[in-house]
Amino acid sequence: MKFEHITLGQRVLFGAGRAAEHVAREAARLGARNIMCITSEFERPFAETALSLADVALWHTDVVQHVPAETAERARTAASDAGIDLIVCVGGGSTTGLAKAVALTTGIPIVAVPTTYAGSEATNVWGLTENATKTTGVDDRVLPVAVVYDAELTLSLPVSLSVASGLNALAHCVDSLWAPRADPINQALAAEGIRALADGLPRIVADPSDLAGRETALYGAYLAAVSFASAGSGLHHKICHVLGGTFNLPHAETHATVLPYVLAFNGPAAPGAAARIAGALRAGLASAGPANAPAQEPGTEPAEEALALLNSLRRTLGAPTALRDHGFTEADIPEAVERILKAVPPSNPAEATAENIGGLLRSALAGTEPTTGSAVLVGAGTGFNGGTK
Amino acid sequence: MKFEHITLGQRVLFGAGRAAEHVAREAARLGARNIMCITSEFERPFAETALSLADVALWHTDVVQHVPAETAERARTAASDAGIDLIVCVGGGSTTGLAKAVALTTGIPIVAVPTTYAGSEATNVWGLTENATKTTGVDDRVLPVAVVYDAELTLSLPVSLSVASGLNALAHCVDSLWAPRADPINQALAAEGIRALADGLPRIVADPSDLAGRETALYGAYLAAVSFASAGSGLHHKICHVLGGTFNLPHAETHATVLPYVLAFNGPAAPGAAARIAGALRAGLASAGPANAPAQEPGTEPAEEALALLNSLRRTLGAPTALRDHGFTEADIPEAVERILKAVPPSNPAEATAENIGGLLRSALAGTEPTTGSAVLVGAGTGFNGGTK
Repeated sequence: MKFEHITLGQRVLFGAGRAAEHVAREAARLGARNIMCITSEFERPFAETALSLADVALWHTDVVQHVPAETAERARTAASDAGIDLIVCVGGGSTTGLAKAVALTTGIPIVAVPTTYAGSEATNVWGLTENATKTTGVDDRVLPVAVVYDAELTLSLPVSLSVASGLNALAHCVDSLWAPRADPINQALAAEGIRALADGLPRIVADPSDLAGRETALYGAYLAAVSFASAGSGLHHKICHVLGGTFNLPHAETHATVLPYVLAFNGPAAPGAAARIAGALRAGLASAGPANAPAQEPGTEPAEEALALLNSLRRTLGAPTALRDHGFTEADIPEAVERILKAVPPSNPAEATAENIGGLLRSALAGTEPTTGSAVLVGAGTGFNGGTK
Repeated sequence: MKFEHITLGQRVLFGAGRAAEHVAREAARLGARNIMCITSEFERPFAETALSLADVALWHTDVVQHVPAETAERARTAASDAGIDLIVCVGGGSTTGLAKAVALTTGIPIVAVPTTYAGSEATNVWGLTENATKTTGVDDRVLPVAVVYDAELTLSLPVSLSVASGLNALAHCVDSLWAPRADPINQALAAEGIRALADGLPRIVADPSDLAGRETALYGAYLAAVSFASAGSGLHHKICHVLGGTFNLPHAETHATVLPYVLAFNGPAAPGAAARIAGALRAGLASAGPANAPAQEPGTEPAEEALALLNSLRRTLGAPTALRDHGFTEADIPEAVERILKAVPPSNPAEATAENIGGLLRSALAGTEPTTGSAVLVGAGTGFNGGTK
């Protein structure tokens, strides 16, 4: 047991229908006198709900995806011109990202009110785009001092976006179990996140107005962000980064498609992690509805069980299954393999080779049902078991 | 799901035999130029190991239990006279407590190196004793910025003290599941702490030089502190506080004896919490040695299973079993009941009455094997299930 774990200090408030009350309480606690609300035009109705008990000095709705540098500069100028002492951001990742860009240079504290499962609100990572290049960095000043989670604000998130965003969060959790800075603490939080997402997401699909289901998913997404920020990017995220960055594949669909292949690839070499994933998926799926968690033969390997449960969850959610449906082609595989091999973390439990990463990508391209040890050649492994001992 | 969870920001470093390396790294990271080491004469050899790669400007070994105000004042004066900019404390609860007393008034950061399972290093709670009265408070300035855990520094902790300190930590975890500020996050951390303690403690008893067992227990003790600091004091701690404060019963023995009776009392009214306790105890005990986790009949209630597993752990550890062995008498029961009833948290899952709390104390006095629903009358309950939904 050798690890260094950084816990980020933050106040988290959960309560459906309580965003306004909780935002007002946090604003008072922070002694805010001049509040800037950052939100997009689309998210503004949620923001007006969340800030209905607070005085807003400045509404700022100039939000653009990926936080362009000039957008950030305009928001910073607006904040300093108005003498802002608290930013309340209400929205998804781009909105939170703009608030972070302002906090990065001004030190103004943020209270975040997320409306998706993006998770940016629970990390100290910022990102800015300039000349078509995204720069990211880590700074504790951009970590929101408080996060207000109100599942009512997610009720209008369409089911398809809820599923895509939720599976992205699930990928954060699964990948955290074998990421470079994986440790027993972030593994425990990731497992709890998997359980919550496997519980909440099927309930949203079954009934988009299921507030408890949305709240459980929101809670899982928070844990996904916490564990991912702590553990770092594992193999899954390295693969998705290459597919998105080099081949311009869509973010959420790529994550949803690739995850089971990475689980099939790493699971047999990380039986401790696989057992945790299986246990958490089973508990979550069983809570969402007993039919979701198929029983396994006694003696089933943990990796096989985890994979069967993940596939069951993906079927329930109607998740995308093949990269060829999203623009990836056979001809892209050699370059993708080359780039992925350069990025595989040394901590990865299964040894990656041109052959087995190529096999993984070919399976994901075609949407072949991922299975342990068949679609993918499993490497020699490193003895890492992803458990807590 | 309605809760407010405060995560305390802290850096935690685990590594057996690495205290010196980790302390030196943290001192450099903090830019420390004048380090004060607070440790007791007894703990000084550990402190010299932990600080062997750092320059110590001031050794301060004037450590007294319960942090008397005049002891704190002397340490504060010594720190300011020497221009100290970092405190490294090496020891148990009293040593960490003195470092916190200095930080409280001076703001000097602390790096804590714990040598017991007391857990003070992971909380923002301070305590001072003046005129025989202990005052406690909460202040983020006393939270150590970093904690360095090195299981080698606990190797000389006698088995009996390891067990007493470890069962106290276990009580923190169990009580966290139904404490006033219990929430899904601190419940997940508490369950992981139970698992780790049930794994580590039997291994220490089997072989006091089992470094992995001591490390696992140390990790469990850290989680116990984190979850307890977050969730607050539940019924168990209220009972122990009365027994210790009014009847002067010894701290660790009281916790070790009372815990199963509180589990028997609350478990049936909190099946979600009981199932979590059972699952975590079983996983930990099975890891420590399969003989430790007795199989249960199918259909056993979670509370009954949790209790059977806790009793098995206590037998393995040779834990104390009867309060009469520690100075408590039948005649003390009426006053104890009266004081306890005033302190029962409103969140407690089982309803406390003079009758059932009296029954609990009579059973604990005699050391009657605690069983759900027999030794103790279970109250009507509040519908709280201690789970995560």
